[in-house]
Amino acid sequence: MLNEISGGVCAAQGFKAAGIRCGVQADASPDKLDLAMILSERECAAAAVYTLNRVKAAPIYVTMDHLENGVAWGVVSNSGNANACCPMSHENAEAMCLFAAQATGREAEDFAVASSGIIGQTINIQAIQTGMPKVASALSAAGSTDAAAAIMTTDTVKKEIAVSFELGGKEIRLGAVAKGSGMIHPNMGTLLAFITTDCAITHEMLEDALREVSAKTFNRVTIDGETSPGDMAVALANGMAGNEQIEWKDEDYNTFCAALDYVCRHLSRSIAGDGEGAGRLVTCRVTGARSEESAERLAKTVVSSALVKAAMFGADANWGRVLVAMGYSKAPFRPEHVDMSFESAAGSVLVCKQGDGLAFDEALAKQILSEKEVVIAVNLNEGEDEAECWGCDLTYDYVRINGDYRT
Amino acid sequence: MLNEISGGVCAAQGFKAAGIRCGVQADASPDKLDLAMILSERECAAAAVYTLNRVKAAPIYVTMDHLENGVAWGVVSNSGNANACCPMSHENAEAMCLFAAQATGREAEDFAVASSGIIGQTINIQAIQTGMPKVASALSAAGSTDAAAAIMTTDTVKKEIAVSFELGGKEIRLGAVAKGSGMIHPNMGTLLAFITTDCAITHEMLEDALREVSAKTFNRVTIDGETSPGDMAVALANGMAGNEQIEWKDEDYNTFCAALDYVCRHLSRSIAGDGEGAGRLVTCRVTGARSEESAERLAKTVVSSALVKAAMFGADANWGRVLVAMGYSKAPFRPEHVDMSFESAAGSVLVCKQGDGLAFDEALAKQILSEKEVVIAVNLNEGEDEAECWGCDLTYDYVRINGDYRT
Repeated sequence: MLNEISGGVCAAQGFKAAGIRCGVQADASPDKLDLAMILSERECAAAAVYTLNRVKAAPIYVTMDHLENGVAWGVVSNSGNANACCPMSHENAEAMCLFAAQATGREAEDFAVASSGIIGQTINIQAIQTGMPKVASALSAAGSTDAAAAIMTTDTVKKEIAVSFELGGKEIRLGAVAKGSGMIHPNMGTLLAFITTDCAITHEMLEDALREVSAKTFNRVTIDGETSPGDMAVALANGMAGNEQIEWKDEDYNTFCAALDYVCRHLSRSIAGDGEGAGRLVTCRVTGARSEESAERLAKTVVSSALVKAAMFGADANWGRVLVAMGYSKAPFRPEHVDMSFESAAGSVLVCKQGDGLAFDEALAKQILSEKEVVIAVNLNEGEDEAECWGCDLTYDYVRINGDYRT
Repeated sequence: MLNEISGGVCAAQGFKAAGIRCGVQADASPDKLDLAMILSERECAAAAVYTLNRVKAAPIYVTMDHLENGVAWGVVSNSGNANACCPMSHENAEAMCLFAAQATGREAEDFAVASSGIIGQTINIQAIQTGMPKVASALSAAGSTDAAAAIMTTDTVKKEIAVSFELGGKEIRLGAVAKGSGMIHPNMGTLLAFITTDCAITHEMLEDALREVSAKTFNRVTIDGETSPGDMAVALANGMAGNEQIEWKDEDYNTFCAALDYVCRHLSRSIAGDGEGAGRLVTCRVTGARSEESAERLAKTVVSSALVKAAMFGADANWGRVLVAMGYSKAPFRPEHVDMSFESAAGSVLVCKQGDGLAFDEALAKQILSEKEVVIAVNLNEGEDEAECWGCDLTYDYVRINGDYRT
């Protein structure tokens, strides 16, 4: 029994958060928050998944190092600069943790650190140093929304969510904030997500849960096929709910994973729907597959296709492009078995049966594809497995935003 | 000694071509030519390379069948409809060859057939049947340009070229027409290219030459990462130049390959520069690599990146995106060894040295990237191998063209 609750990343007992403006990027709007902190009042089991890009931002290496012992107390994160591919980036990522420690009476090793924004320019570490005591003193149980705002780059909406559920009679809370809009492609946590829970769970189990759930949620989002060098998902569990600690892959573990899946799925869909310049959330659901892997690969290729994405922008039921994208996915399937339909709140229209096009109501199809959330439903008619991936349309605004992001 | 000559696909002795309007796509402009024929007056050694997309258009299968014996006389090709993923597509592709045979006094099996355009709608075979005698009677040695025009879809410029060279004192001519603008991504002939030569060469040697050269030319073009189901490159060699037949990989073979490479490289760059909505030709040249394969993979990933392409549209020297794209290419390299510069007719600017950003003249960089042809030059500083791939920028027009292509 899972309930959505308020409070975001502070919903779980013992977690506070804050977001302030410290001026990392001098020419950003004076209202843009750019420094976030999340802190637990107790030590947490900690787990993280990291970008697979060979070019990794310095905060990734620093966080890997700090979380190696499986414990942490908090997260510090800035937007406006990715602290990647520039001199002093490693030193500056370490310095961020040190400043956070000084401002909170903890150790530098107690913090995960994440930066997102421009690549290749040295970060304004003075601004962060000055801002750190301010963000620490702003920490509150009502700070989730400001933290969510402070980690945004080209995002247009804040991403936060929390749920509660029960384990052995104890109420457990699990909350998160995330960011992600451009440079998003499924292959590990290609975004920033900070997840907190008061569940008692070992860091090994937390790591397994995060890895399993990320693979089916964050890794199934694509905005533009780009894997960012700085992105990660971090989970902190402080055990304050008082449940019997999860140490095995038992029923409690499964319950915890279901809650984590709910939270990460929500964030993933928010991220896809808020893709850079996106007008709609595009889901590709592949059913009737011989394996979940091939269903996922097909769905991911479809939502990654520039031509499919442009057709979705135009609300054009160009199903041929979907089939073609499936064709180059390298996943096995028989084109002559494929059924396809487009679905949304406005209805459903079957456009292809056993690989051949059908005559269909173009006006209805246009109406269906003009909704904010649309589904490309593909049935391979070959097995029982399925997968769903999320993306967005390719719009003029994506080109505008990325044609002149840096300068 | 290679000379560029006029005549395109008819430059070689014994080849004629034509392009006419038969009305495959009723609502196209009345000026749009849509049916092309290329015919040799003698039997040709024939070779082809085909799309690797699992979803293949019917003409691919028919051409594979017709060229299996290694000989052919000509090519028939229409634009406006891809003859893919629709009922009767196989029968209609066979019918096109039959009509071509009837109009020229040959056999259906003597023809390669290729269609490009809309996927999933049954082709107007009556229009093609009516048009076939017309295109056959229009065949002429001056017909290359019309044939090039008739195979265009969203292309904005015709692609044709011819060269001459000598083998054993005989002048050999080699010419081609091609099309390709959207749904272009390196993995086999993801475009249409028809190449003719009067060189005497066995079909085995012709096939090897075409395969080797395609891998280094057509397969290094990307417009949008999409591999089309209908694309192919066909080479016809009628032997009329009277040179001693090329039967081995000897010096003559190498001379022939160099000429073929010149022609295919020219077509590849034309296709990249004429990408759907493209404003400029973007070349990524990776040098200092430990293998040509890794250099190619890196260069291909860079020119495929939506974020790099959008930056090129904005003439924004956002080199961080180049490094990030290299990072997710799965090719091995050390980011900390990488030097990078942007180059064009307007000059050259070094932006990154040993993986770290340099302060550089932004105004000069903008000027360099505002040219019609720009080069992203990456030195891995790890070996002697190199490769070059070609793409284009991502523009509002790409989105416009593909947001409403079908309807």
